[in-house]
Amino acid sequence: MSDNRIYIFDTTLRDGEQVPGCKLNTEQKIELAIALEKLGVDIIEAGFPISSPGDFKSVEEIAKAVGDVTVCALSRSVEKDIKTAAEALQYANRPRIHTGIGTSESHIKYKFRTTQDKIIERAVAAVKYAKSFVEDVEFYAEDAGRTDNVFLAQVLEAVLKAGATVLNIPDTTGYCLPEEYGAKIKYLRENVKGIDKAVISTHCHNDLGLATANSIAGIQNGARQIECTINGIGERAGNTSLEEVVMIMRQHAKMNFETAIQTKQLQNISHLVSDRMGMPVQPNKAIVGANAFAHSSGIHQDGVIKKRETYEIINPLDVGVDHSKIVLTARSGRAAIAYRAKEIGFNLTKDDLDIVYKNFLTVADTKKEVDDKDLQQIIVKKTSQVGASSR
Amino acid sequence: MSDNRIYIFDTTLRDGEQVPGCKLNTEQKIELAIALEKLGVDIIEAGFPISSPGDFKSVEEIAKAVGDVTVCALSRSVEKDIKTAAEALQYANRPRIHTGIGTSESHIKYKFRTTQDKIIERAVAAVKYAKSFVEDVEFYAEDAGRTDNVFLAQVLEAVLKAGATVLNIPDTTGYCLPEEYGAKIKYLRENVKGIDKAVISTHCHNDLGLATANSIAGIQNGARQIECTINGIGERAGNTSLEEVVMIMRQHAKMNFETAIQTKQLQNISHLVSDRMGMPVQPNKAIVGANAFAHSSGIHQDGVIKKRETYEIINPLDVGVDHSKIVLTARSGRAAIAYRAKEIGFNLTKDDLDIVYKNFLTVADTKKEVDDKDLQQIIVKKTSQVGASSR
Repeated sequence: MSDNRIYIFDTTLRDGEQVPGCKLNTEQKIELAIALEKLGVDIIEAGFPISSPGDFKSVEEIAKAVGDVTVCALSRSVEKDIKTAAEALQYANRPRIHTGIGTSESHIKYKFRTTQDKIIERAVAAVKYAKSFVEDVEFYAEDAGRTDNVFLAQVLEAVLKAGATVLNIPDTTGYCLPEEYGAKIKYLRENVKGIDKAVISTHCHNDLGLATANSIAGIQNGARQIECTINGIGERAGNTSLEEVVMIMRQHAKMNFETAIQTKQLQNISHLVSDRMGMPVQPNKAIVGANAFAHSSGIHQDGVIKKRETYEIINPLDVGVDHSKIVLTARSGRAAIAYRAKEIGFNLTKDDLDIVYKNFLTVADTKKEVDDKDLQQIIVKKTSQVGASSR
Repeated sequence: MSDNRIYIFDTTLRDGEQVPGCKLNTEQKIELAIALEKLGVDIIEAGFPISSPGDFKSVEEIAKAVGDVTVCALSRSVEKDIKTAAEALQYANRPRIHTGIGTSESHIKYKFRTTQDKIIERAVAAVKYAKSFVEDVEFYAEDAGRTDNVFLAQVLEAVLKAGATVLNIPDTTGYCLPEEYGAKIKYLRENVKGIDKAVISTHCHNDLGLATANSIAGIQNGARQIECTINGIGERAGNTSLEEVVMIMRQHAKMNFETAIQTKQLQNISHLVSDRMGMPVQPNKAIVGANAFAHSSGIHQDGVIKKRETYEIINPLDVGVDHSKIVLTARSGRAAIAYRAKEIGFNLTKDDLDIVYKNFLTVADTKKEVDDKDLQQIIVKKTSQVGASSR
């Protein structure tokens, strides 16, 4: 495997599913897990088995239903959590237990009301206990984004010795700037003994709109796993969007990162997740929003009609979208009208087009969008006197 | 004015309004312009007057309706566009004409079918013509994100000499990585003679989910104006979200940037724009999404109940949200149930809580969300035998 292979760890079914309104039943979780495996994710975080009997069952059934993808279950650094996670994973071909504890001053002082030394003890005990069940143990240092780097390095060195195979550095509260998050990963790579044996993972939240940029900063500085969700769903403002980081790596080939994601499935799986979770995707969402490949201003339409690449950096087909959309609105120009007119069977002369355009604007100023039927009416009605040619 | 004052240039009514489905009538545009002025934006891009008679009228009426905020109108590097923009701005206290032309190889070759020299000629002529109407002329180098830096510097030096007061460096197609966009701004600052006399502006699109990070990289490298929209609406995947860049500057005080935005109005104006444009905001949108301050997993709820800052970096009140939400789902834990139970009048003992929690999970596994009425039923029904105390 190349040094630049980035593992995609999908947590749609765990961090995504825990969101208000997003709860799925076991059947739905299995359906999405199978779709995620087909998409090419490397790891599916299937749930948090201790949280409820329903979630335990979902993790167990997903482990049975999928093939060779790694199935991961979440736990706190608590024995019964870890044991329950191991039980739920018993049928997985490649089981991974994800365990961890808060490491920031705020978490240690106000949530755990304990000391740094005790946190390290609990972390090490959790990883050792998890290793008694499975080989693949991922450790999360919760709120690592706000954790002092020196202490964070101590925690990670200790859990590495205890057998952790993956080290997750979550920006739990979505606070970091990209250069801060990148510098944190770099610091850890340079200061944690033995870290080369483990995979460093990013887990970024989007509270300030920076989850995608932070994840990319992470891999640029040595992380090799990105935790993310379809449509960026997740606690509060959500997690890193899978579709965004994958397409950044694909479109910026000079960064030389690879994933196993089948990008042509991105649009379909976005719809599937949105539908099953009842979680709408805003039209202006990057990659998978309804308008992501729609052009409405005259300037842009003119460019796209001449050559798609003037205003599009991604070929819509690459993410499973049929074609770019040229939408007629009051901001459209002559080029778009001639283009749409031709699509519906009218080859307008320059004179025709001048008249149609003027009348089009009068109609368009009163409507959000001018559809083909409206355009046809405008053409038929207003060009009869100058003889529009219909093919 | 401090060197670190960042001007907020809102283009909700131009780049936002040109989106499929987002068209507004003049009355609605005036309503939003007044709200934007109250929010504290420095510049309102009110429209593209040549595009339609309705848009001309909207720009004119906005110029009459607002006070001292700068009102900006868009134009291509075409005389009739610029003249029409100037006419629409005649009643503005602080008018600005925004004119420009594509500078990337793709735009020059495929859209304009011309040469670099001709592009510079047209750019200079446009700026000079605009200066004959107004003092404040902003020049955009369309597709600057994909424009060769050496040529871009030549264009900018020429338009600066012609009188441009603001230089807009749009990443029109949303292609740049933050370090690339930041390096571009730095290069221009270091290589364009006289650039210190102008304000450098960022205008980033979100096709890869990086608009916010790119805008921040821009100001870190010397830009002093950010072009953005409420809710990040705009062509395709939209523009930089105003609420995200403003809150990044506020939460990262050490960057030492200032804006004039009244952040407590962010939630209200987000709702207003979404409602008037019929453009939904996804629940997991940063800052203004319905779930941005909602907590549903047991681990997070426990932390937030102990101390809000464990899982929240922004005080919801600062952006006009009443309070954090503790939502009960199958991923909730004992702490959240005890908290909600207390809110609805039940002080549960530890034994009560164990029974209520178990029964709660059975109910929660079948529902997306457990509301207060459900919780009350669970408590009343299941704790009667052990004597739950009601206050």
